[in-house]
Amino acid sequence: MSATHQLRCTNCGARIAADAASSDFRCPECNGLYEVIYPWSPGASSVPPGPDPAVRLPNPNALRYRWQELRTSTLSIDQSGVWRFRDLLPILNNLDNVVTLREGNTPLYEMPRCAELAGVDWLLAKHQGMNPTGSFKDTGMTAAMSVAVERGFKWVACASTGNTSAAMAAYAARAGLRSIVFIPDGKIAWGKLSQAMDYGALTVQLKTDFDGCLQLLIELVRRFPIYLLNSVNPYRLEGQKTPAVEIAEQMEWQVPEHIVVPGGNLGNSSALGKGFQELKHIGLIPRVPKISIIQAEGANPLYRWFSDTNREMKPVHAETRATAIRIGNPASWKKAARVIEETGGWCEQVNEQEIALAKAEIGAEGVGCEPASAVTLAGLKKLVAQGRVTPGERVVLVLTGHTLKDPQYTIDYHRGALLTPVELAGATPAERTQHEALRKPPIVLEADEAVVLRALEEQMAISDAAHAPVASGIPV
Amino acid sequence: MSATHQLRCTNCGARIAADAASSDFRCPECNGLYEVIYPWSPGASSVPPGPDPAVRLPNPNALRYRWQELRTSTLSIDQSGVWRFRDLLPILNNLDNVVTLREGNTPLYEMPRCAELAGVDWLLAKHQGMNPTGSFKDTGMTAAMSVAVERGFKWVACASTGNTSAAMAAYAARAGLRSIVFIPDGKIAWGKLSQAMDYGALTVQLKTDFDGCLQLLIELVRRFPIYLLNSVNPYRLEGQKTPAVEIAEQMEWQVPEHIVVPGGNLGNSSALGKGFQELKHIGLIPRVPKISIIQAEGANPLYRWFSDTNREMKPVHAETRATAIRIGNPASWKKAARVIEETGGWCEQVNEQEIALAKAEIGAEGVGCEPASAVTLAGLKKLVAQGRVTPGERVVLVLTGHTLKDPQYTIDYHRGALLTPVELAGATPAERTQHEALRKPPIVLEADEAVVLRALEEQMAISDAAHAPVASGIPV
Repeated sequence: MSATHQLRCTNCGARIAADAASSDFRCPECNGLYEVIYPWSPGASSVPPGPDPAVRLPNPNALRYRWQELRTSTLSIDQSGVWRFRDLLPILNNLDNVVTLREGNTPLYEMPRCAELAGVDWLLAKHQGMNPTGSFKDTGMTAAMSVAVERGFKWVACASTGNTSAAMAAYAARAGLRSIVFIPDGKIAWGKLSQAMDYGALTVQLKTDFDGCLQLLIELVRRFPIYLLNSVNPYRLEGQKTPAVEIAEQMEWQVPEHIVVPGGNLGNSSALGKGFQELKHIGLIPRVPKISIIQAEGANPLYRWFSDTNREMKPVHAETRATAIRIGNPASWKKAARVIEETGGWCEQVNEQEIALAKAEIGAEGVGCEPASAVTLAGLKKLVAQGRVTPGERVVLVLTGHTLKDPQYTIDYHRGALLTPVELAGATPAERTQHEALRKPPIVLEADEAVVLRALEEQMAISDAAHAPVASGIPV
Repeated sequence: MSATHQLRCTNCGARIAADAASSDFRCPECNGLYEVIYPWSPGASSVPPGPDPAVRLPNPNALRYRWQELRTSTLSIDQSGVWRFRDLLPILNNLDNVVTLREGNTPLYEMPRCAELAGVDWLLAKHQGMNPTGSFKDTGMTAAMSVAVERGFKWVACASTGNTSAAMAAYAARAGLRSIVFIPDGKIAWGKLSQAMDYGALTVQLKTDFDGCLQLLIELVRRFPIYLLNSVNPYRLEGQKTPAVEIAEQMEWQVPEHIVVPGGNLGNSSALGKGFQELKHIGLIPRVPKISIIQAEGANPLYRWFSDTNREMKPVHAETRATAIRIGNPASWKKAARVIEETGGWCEQVNEQEIALAKAEIGAEGVGCEPASAVTLAGLKKLVAQGRVTPGERVVLVLTGHTLKDPQYTIDYHRGALLTPVELAGATPAERTQHEALRKPPIVLEADEAVVLRALEEQMAISDAAHAPVASGIPV
């Protein structure tokens, strides 16, 4: 039994020993989700400290110094942007069980042109799509997979058609475990499954819908020694909280005023909130930034809950081209709602046209992201317009996936095949001008010098006129 | 004029000032390609040292210490795995001109199961596909784009349908420059162009073939202030040499015996050779590793040259599914040939079946790569079988691109639609068994507990039998 941490139900507050959770990670009392707490966690004072004094409230200066020193180490565990901060996630008894692909250490990009478009002075983007499998899921998967190894599991499983299955399959392969991906039968988006297959996962199509897959998976983990890696697994969130530490460290512990996160299953925003709150509790940062969550209009259950005076959560039928956040019944909504309320953040929704434009604007800074990530910029524009973010505030957008996760979306956008006339009709004149400036369908020319020269001269004139000068003199 | 470096023709040895090169980067005497040399470069003793003493032969201990210190810096220029080693590429007069996306810092993975398959005790893979746009091209593009900025260019261009165009477009966007990609008209592989479009490049389809595109591009850069970013640009190789420094540093300056690199346009192997040779010259490493180059059978001009007693280079009509190395007339073949000869490396070729198998084997370690990268493992197996690599030698495979660069290849392989019966018939019985163990087409099942449980029990039994135990106890 681990003395370093316990699990606490986020709904009823019941605490259990780390190894006492049922295989589906649901509270037997109230069906709530668990979170991991340590002796030094906020509000965990009644947890008895373990025998190791290192699990007591750590000294902030010692931590900062230690984490900086570890950056010069060539050990894989230190080169991981998750395990370098292992003081904050003492979930393993033996660090030999760590399964890492050198996740984390993702760039924090300055976005001077997007800042201007959104109406803020300075804007940063934390690109979690630069993780090994191309999405933020890797930071969580390294944590949960290491726990699976320590507990002796040989098989792991999840129900997912996207980024989760890719991350699970990669880390399982790294650990030498077998992995199973459950997906609903029917039209398969093969592109989304290519990574899971590449990393050797067994893909099982079930003749049911997604909820049916999840239900069967839970039956399965109850009867078989298979470790459940869907987002209900609380150890995933322990890994996913580490980008909060990276952001703070990259900004020299001067935390930003505002973090903007895409909202799908809502595990990511919950984890970031937990990360910042723990940093504050330990004394590493003076305050927690506001965390705002942006959803797509077609998959907006949290937005509806947030706007509803009765505060009732009703699942919706989800429909958006930002597939990574196409979730109508998010597992972690209560955790996320708590994060918004506790940090003073906000919840907004954006439409398909706004998402497509924001993605092109982010791309035009040389930073490629998947559509779901672009809701952050689209949402920030609204928050600024509403006065919820003031121009002087320092904002960090969390980009969750790499542009290569969905090349078809990009191709369709630039060829003019993405947005419907109805969607485009909803754009403001300024937005329409932006679309025209950013959409770059290929032009076809005779292989004749004069023809090409003339065409390029024209293009140069157009582009030079349309292209705003770089807003920042800072080397980027 | 820059006092820190000159350009030297790799064919006739003529030296010119850095800013005296023609816009197509060809030697006016002999049409040869240039390389960048510094006062401290091997064989550069006649270059007058510049006014800055820092450009004299650097002290190896001071460099090691400085580079380690810089790893704790939060400046973007220091967080770049190219510019952290800027002492080795003093190509800019002003570091404010650096254009970076935080390239480099790529992982060096242990590959215990691939080691066993290849017949060596220990095997590492340097994954250049973990760069921001998903390929090794980023390390070169950050260098060449920074030079473009310093020289005041507003437009950059290349002829490419793949990784080069993605990298160019991203760095151009980052710098606020306009970029043009020339591609042959006809059937477009849109997936390969999605990134260039996302980053805002102008794509021009010319009614000619690839050579025609290149020719027109060269006419263009002669008449317009457009900076040429094809691989003839010698600054790209300056960035691409830095993974050699990273490998040496990650291995605590104990260089491996052997580096295995995919061979396409051959700029990468040339650059790595230059990097290791400079490290040895400065005294940072005691010897240069052997560098071996592996080509696909259908795109093997260097292999033919290498096997030809007359040593004649004849372009071939290139055909391979490993599109990133589908090049019949490689620009940098002379530089690469020199690297093989000077380091004592070898040149091999591998067929489509061997490539597909090696890619699946790399994937089964949790490391996804594009098909071209997998030629390294396939080639290593041959080098070991031939006795050119002994089991005790430490080998590093250079993986050049991310698995997300070509999801269709992965899907086709696992669905059994990639290899033809003729290709498969060429496999050995052992290879056929491996294909069967690694290919994971989805299975379709009724959403019934008993059915799923039974199917998984079977799969577990099969997998447990087929799956070799993890070969290494080292945490990976």
